[in-house]
Amino acid sequence: MIAPLPDLLLRPLVTAALAEDLGLAGDITTELIAADRHATAAIVARQGGVCCGLDLARLSFASLDEAVEFRPSCHDGESVTAGMTLATVRGCARSLLSGERVALNYMTHLSGIATATAAMVAEIRRVKGGESVRLSCTRKTLPGLRMVQKYAVRCGGGSNHRFGLFDAILLKDNHLALMGSPAAAVAMARQRVGHLVGIEIEVDRLDQLDELLSAAVKPDVVLLDNMSPDQLRLAVGMRLAKGCLSVLFEASGGVQLSTVAELAATGVEIISAGWLTHSSRGLDIGLDFRAD
Amino acid sequence: MIAPLPDLLLRPLVTAALAEDLGLAGDITTELIAADRHATAAIVARQGGVCCGLDLARLSFASLDEAVEFRPSCHDGESVTAGMTLATVRGCARSLLSGERVALNYMTHLSGIATATAAMVAEIRRVKGGESVRLSCTRKTLPGLRMVQKYAVRCGGGSNHRFGLFDAILLKDNHLALMGSPAAAVAMARQRVGHLVGIEIEVDRLDQLDELLSAAVKPDVVLLDNMSPDQLRLAVGMRLAKGCLSVLFEASGGVQLSTVAELAATGVEIISAGWLTHSSRGLDIGLDFRAD
Amino acid sequence: MIAPLPDLLLRPLVTAALAEDLGLAGDITTELIAADRHATAAIVARQGGVCCGLDLARLSFASLDEAVEFRPSCHDGESVTAGMTLATVRGCARSLLSGERVALNYMTHLSGIATATAAMVAEIRRVKGGESVRLSCTRKTLPGLRMVQKYAVRCGGGSNHRFGLFDAILLKDNHLALMGSPAAAVAMARQRVGHLVGIEIEVDRLDQLDELLSAAVKPDVVLLDNMSPDQLRLAVGMRLAKGCLSVLFEASGGVQLSTVAELAATGVEIISAGWLTHSSRGLDIGLDFRAD
Amino acid sequence: MIAPLPDLLLRPLVTAALAEDLGLAGDITTELIAADRHATAAIVARQGGVCCGLDLARLSFASLDEAVEFRPSCHDGESVTAGMTLATVRGCARSLLSGERVALNYMTHLSGIATATAAMVAEIRRVKGGESVRLSCTRKTLPGLRMVQKYAVRCGGGSNHRFGLFDAILLKDNHLALMGSPAAAVAMARQRVGHLVGIEIEVDRLDQLDELLSAAVKPDVVLLDNMSPDQLRLAVGMRLAKGCLSVLFEASGGVQLSTVAELAATGVEIISAGWLTHSSRGLDIGLDFRAD
Amino acid sequence: MIAPLPDLLLRPLVTAALAEDLGLAGDITTELIAADRHATAAIVARQGGVCCGLDLARLSFASLDEAVEFRPSCHDGESVTAGMTLATVRGCARSLLSGERVALNYMTHLSGIATATAAMVAEIRRVKGGESVRLSCTRKTLPGLRMVQKYAVRCGGGSNHRFGLFDAILLKDNHLALMGSPAAAVAMARQRVGHLVGIEIEVDRLDQLDELLSAAVKPDVVLLDNMSPDQLRLAVGMRLAKGCLSVLFEASGGVQLSTVAELAATGVEIISAGWLTHSSRGLDIGLDFRAD
Amino acid sequence: MIAPLPDLLLRPLVTAALAEDLGLAGDITTELIAADRHATAAIVARQGGVCCGLDLARLSFASLDEAVEFRPSCHDGESVTAGMTLATVRGCARSLLSGERVALNYMTHLSGIATATAAMVAEIRRVKGGESVRLSCTRKTLPGLRMVQKYAVRCGGGSNHRFGLFDAILLKDNHLALMGSPAAAVAMARQRVGHLVGIEIEVDRLDQLDELLSAAVKPDVVLLDNMSPDQLRLAVGMRLAKGCLSVLFEASGGVQLSTVAELAATGVEIISAGWLTHSSRGLDIGLDFRAD
Repeated sequence: MIAPLPDLLLRPLVTAALAEDLGLAGDITTELIAADRHATAAIVARQGGVCCGLDLARLSFASLDEAVEFRPSCHDGESVTAGMTLATVRGCARSLLSGERVALNYMTHLSGIATATAAMVAEIRRVKGGESVRLSCTRKTLPGLRMVQKYAVRCGGGSNHRFGLFDAILLKDNHLALMGSPAAAVAMARQRVGHLVGIEIEVDRLDQLDELLSAAVKPDVVLLDNMSPDQLRLAVGMRLAKGCLSVLFEASGGVQLSTVAELAATGVEIISAGWLTHSSRGLDIGLDFRAD
Repeated sequence: MIAPLPDLLLRPLVTAALAEDLGLAGDITTELIAADRHATAAIVARQGGVCCGLDLARLSFASLDEAVEFRPSCHDGESVTAGMTLATVRGCARSLLSGERVALNYMTHLSGIATATAAMVAEIRRVKGGESVRLSCTRKTLPGLRMVQKYAVRCGGGSNHRFGLFDAILLKDNHLALMGSPAAAVAMARQRVGHLVGIEIEVDRLDQLDELLSAAVKPDVVLLDNMSPDQLRLAVGMRLAKGCLSVLFEASGGVQLSTVAELAATGVEIISAGWLTHSSRGLDIGLDFRAD
Repeated sequence: MIAPLPDLLLRPLVTAALAEDLGLAGDITTELIAADRHATAAIVARQGGVCCGLDLARLSFASLDEAVEFRPSCHDGESVTAGMTLATVRGCARSLLSGERVALNYMTHLSGIATATAAMVAEIRRVKGGESVRLSCTRKTLPGLRMVQKYAVRCGGGSNHRFGLFDAILLKDNHLALMGSPAAAVAMARQRVGHLVGIEIEVDRLDQLDELLSAAVKPDVVLLDNMSPDQLRLAVGMRLAKGCLSVLFEASGGVQLSTVAELAATGVEIISAGWLTHSSRGLDIGLDFRAD
Repeated sequence: MIAPLPDLLLRPLVTAALAEDLGLAGDITTELIAADRHATAAIVARQGGVCCGLDLARLSFASLDEAVEFRPSCHDGESVTAGMTLATVRGCARSLLSGERVALNYMTHLSGIATATAAMVAEIRRVKGGESVRLSCTRKTLPGLRMVQKYAVRCGGGSNHRFGLFDAILLKDNHLALMGSPAAAVAMARQRVGHLVGIEIEVDRLDQLDELLSAAVKPDVVLLDNMSPDQLRLAVGMRLAKGCLSVLFEASGGVQLSTVAELAATGVEIISAGWLTHSSRGLDIGLDFRAD
Repeated sequence: MIAPLPDLLLRPLVTAALAEDLGLAGDITTELIAADRHATAAIVARQGGVCCGLDLARLSFASLDEAVEFRPSCHDGESVTAGMTLATVRGCARSLLSGERVALNYMTHLSGIATATAAMVAEIRRVKGGESVRLSCTRKTLPGLRMVQKYAVRCGGGSNHRFGLFDAILLKDNHLALMGSPAAAVAMARQRVGHLVGIEIEVDRLDQLDELLSAAVKPDVVLLDNMSPDQLRLAVGMRLAKGCLSVLFEASGGVQLSTVAELAATGVEIISAGWLTHSSRGLDIGLDFRAD
Repeated sequence: MIAPLPDLLLRPLVTAALAEDLGLAGDITTELIAADRHATAAIVARQGGVCCGLDLARLSFASLDEAVEFRPSCHDGESVTAGMTLATVRGCARSLLSGERVALNYMTHLSGIATATAAMVAEIRRVKGGESVRLSCTRKTLPGLRMVQKYAVRCGGGSNHRFGLFDAILLKDNHLALMGSPAAAVAMARQRVGHLVGIEIEVDRLDQLDELLSAAVKPDVVLLDNMSPDQLRLAVGMRLAKGCLSVLFEASGGVQLSTVAELAATGVEIISAGWLTHSSRGLDIGLDFRAD
């Protein structure tokens, strides 16, 4: 089971989302309902997929009203089918109505990412089995949502790339254009960063790869950008020939559900796809009320 | 031209997005490049669509380095074609590289929304011409991004629904289940809210609509939820028969690009679609560098 | 009963107010009292008026010490007489003493606004009865306190004008000086804003009103600025003659307790008064301690 | 001339006030005006009083638009007459219109406090001359506005009491009820607090004062609460008899403009009045536009 | 016993410290441990000293997980010996491991300051007994930590100097160079500041002191900067000769544990030492786990 | 030269530090100086060491007053001698005096850390030469200051360990006690974390090391905790014998200036010392004014 993010990190997000929705006047529609009405509501998947965002949904209600009971009936990362109840909430009707949209906005978006990730992971497993090829996200996330989007990728069975500019080196084409040879750039990076920081470098051509694999100081990972399956296979062969098996290969660039299996079969260890976090469709999830 | 959002409101978003990316260590890759290298880069559309997010891109660089020059070559809301340069940035190479991802993350996402909105608006105009039917967003937005997502909808030629729970009444099925008759709910709302607050009510069935149109106190807008084109036409006819032309009709529920024209032809004034903000694909936009 | 504002929105205000009072050293006077002393204290009205701010008072103590018991003996919006206990607090003496001033500062100010509002509303009802004329606040609020000041107006029986620049159109003289004819301005506004946004326009002269009422696109509300009762009566007559009964009229400009009844009798629907929020006197409220 | 508060402290207040007014949609009325219209506007006193809040007004415009020119024509603390221009602003019409209300809300409120303070100070000087009796504010301030309200008191010629619970000892009746003898309380306070912290104690009766003046460890200030002029004169005489001239006396409790002179004549050094900050009326100040 | 700081003031510090440690991914090591493992751990002093920071340690765990039990076995300000348990924590193993470092970072640092303060205070008492000479901190604190560092000084038996630029006057050499005579500066200060604000002035030479003690308006405290014990004794004698016993003397400048006793013996009332807060070594404190 | 941290990350720290010092009243001492006095001041090292914190000092003045000129005469990471001017500031005397303490508090603390780091690095180089052994900091930092403390370590020639719980795996004794065999823990970690995340594990005994080096999945780094130089040499020999040269060794535990050389000679790659950030003494740095 995926380890949850601590409420300490989620609560400020939820509070800001609720404040965005409540403004200075609060929920002027729900105020029309009697303060002592209670209700029960079910968070229900309207289509099949992978559930994600239950803690955020819980906090959406709890931040408005500590007395709301929130009972999850599945867990983040679980596959769910259309019609399935993901959680039940019970309490003051006003609180349920006011918290509904924020809760659903989180769950819809994150379950959408988890579902898209799981679909790609299933494709990879179809051709590879086991966990030998990882599906990774990128830094192409929506501003302010990176933490929870990366969590959703984990819930879908994917793996996380670096979280930001701060936690790993990734030398891309634009860096290299300003720095000289790839091998020299890697050597400089290794000398400068801490002993636990991973170093990855992007190459567009196999001659760049050759230089990197021949150098004294090697990167931890090479990102093979926009290469065809044939080129990737050549790269994997080159690595074997050089005896550099500890250098991992990541394939990236326009990866789609329809192409991921073919990439996975080439022998790379990691496939990364930006669209998981910037272009996944939401999973349709709703809230069904019944008065108590 | 769409009025821009004030920098005062955008700057905190951009600062938070950059801080999310920089962490406590900053951009450890870009630090490897000489501090005095300068560069020019073009923000380029890699596919056609509607541009949105230029101010956020400008602030992504300016918040890191006031000396970066940012020259837009189009404006938000403008249609762009693949390969077109949207803006040029020039300055310290480190600043351009460190700000790139946040700038592109905003532009990719918001241009994607604007593009999806524009496509639907074009469909509506194909059957209706003029501006007689509006395409509206909903509150199904991504937490923390509502302000800029709603702006992107405007850039795409769409219209904004209420911004939150605070600025208009929207009585939905869950409210009505707890409140008694729709007409009584509208009357109570009118008595309680300020004189500039709009009142909208959702109906699923035409008998509810009949009650509302016959009541002494009428809503400003009726949301006709998940109705077929035939039902919508019946509703429009009922309104005409009752002589309630000042009550606007909004059609909503699973609206798609393929169905919007048919809905628009029924005579409703507003069509709303949640997926514009929760499920639009990003528009592919990149940054092309060249050293100065 | 007025719907309360959610604690989620009030808590940050109270926390900031307490931090303002506690600084970096805390309450250095109260520290001199033994930590295990307990006390009971009554929040008492020292003059008659309308109570407002009980939730803020509760949070002033609860934010310092969750163990403090707070028992309200009336509710916001209730008329109270001099000497009446509004709430009782019981707990650690240090907590009661440290929270006292913030609690009272909120209650004094907001009850003052509610009391002033109620006095004007009573004047209006004296001449009009029912609720046919509303007393409204304005945007002339104290920075940072708008949300709670507007709530206090509601507690006094008043109605809220727009909450800010964002939730309704109000075209004032300065806008019109830059925009051309009032009728054209209203038409442009209607075309640009969302379908739930109210549109109001200020006029100083009856010829402007004539233009507005004759136009194809009418505003929701006309603000008749600084007009005499005679002028207001002429305006009301003009509206009747034009058959524009759906356009509401708001009288504004230097409204006082002594003049409000005369204005209310003219036939306008709304009277707005800025001084409710910027110049009301506080209601005298104190805290009476007794050691347990 | 009163030293200004640093922009560093004022800017966050102004930014929050503007955000409160702009919401998520910005100024939807002003957007209707052409982006390239420029204007000039004068901040004008509509009644006589003491000006306060010019820096906050300047920042209200500058935070929206750095290009706005703000030229003060007087300074905070200066007496102004009805019709006098306090400052001129020039720039983009949209910026002037959007910043107007926040700027005026600050100036109206703070000038009102400064004006009320100055009126009381003038009364005191009428009977005493010089600066021998100070008029002081209290902690009865509006939450979030203490810093600027206390500044306004200084601009009106008043003096500041402690800023919060943290910067001076004030032993009030409720503390004493829990602590034993006043003299013992003062001695304990002196032993516990830092060497630069002032110690004040409230007394309601002259026998308490006698005890304090006879004790080995004396307070810096005695607050004589709700005493009549006769009692105050007795207190002053008692102090002279005891030879405790270094202990200052503060008269407090329901002080009004009509009673302050009589209190000032009794020989106390300080008179404090809570209503300066919680119940002053705003000074009427407006913004007059003209298109450039 | 030293009065604790309210949780209201401590919680934001702890939350920020935990967020600094958790980043966007949380504790990726501790996630490897089963979610249902529970543990008990003891916070143990690895060297003798004075305990400080228990509330911050408690909040470090409680902010992550309200279910963690925290039982202090001593109190802030208490002397502890090597090996002594300061508190016991029990709960979910993940929570204990994730909160450990922040809790210890606070306790190590603050107990270090309390211990260093206590050592100096003991030196002073060795020569003086009683509490007649105070050891005070300065404003040479670490940014963001002033509140808790000053609290630690109190826990070590020291006294606090002013908390910032706002709560007392301290005229230093740089001020005087720009202001004219010390006595004139003091007189101006007395006239300008509130009646509870202490006034201190720094002198480097005895002739400056002579001027100050002869003036009509005297400071509350004179800071004798970098003077030798002989000079300090001369100063004390001069004060006696002038009959100015109410003016306190503070010795400052490079005070060390080895020199403090000699300074204390000179007759000054206060000795201040910046290194207490900027250069104290941490007290070695660890967390010993055992699985339940 | 060490890459600077972006102002975007430093400015909020400086603003908070200044606000901490200014409170609600501002600098009440400096206000006594004429507003139009200008001055020049030099930031001067009073003892030799390594300079760090110039950007924070610059921002301390610039955040108060943009017109202050700040001219550094050295750069962060540079060795300086007693008496050397590190930077010159020129501008309004009030601004210089108000910003002085925050600027010096940062520089004193961070230069102290850089100086301590440099001293240890010099010791290591004395026995090893080159850069073959790194000196690293830990997570034993002062809350809220981690980013700048880690930067100071870099300026002193040291290397950074992980920045928090989020950017690398470090399995410590307490984790292992709850997880089973070290080798199994490493294997689980490798499977779970992203492909760029480093994995380190702490061992106290050589048999644990043997297990780790024999396992199929190896850690990136082994932390040899509290081992004697002899044990470390045995560990290095064991690694050679196993042919695991890609696994790095870190020696940690009570490392002092006097012992670091002996540890460095054992063949480990990294030595880490918590006291660099929790117990370094400040470097004595002052500000010398002269009026212009």
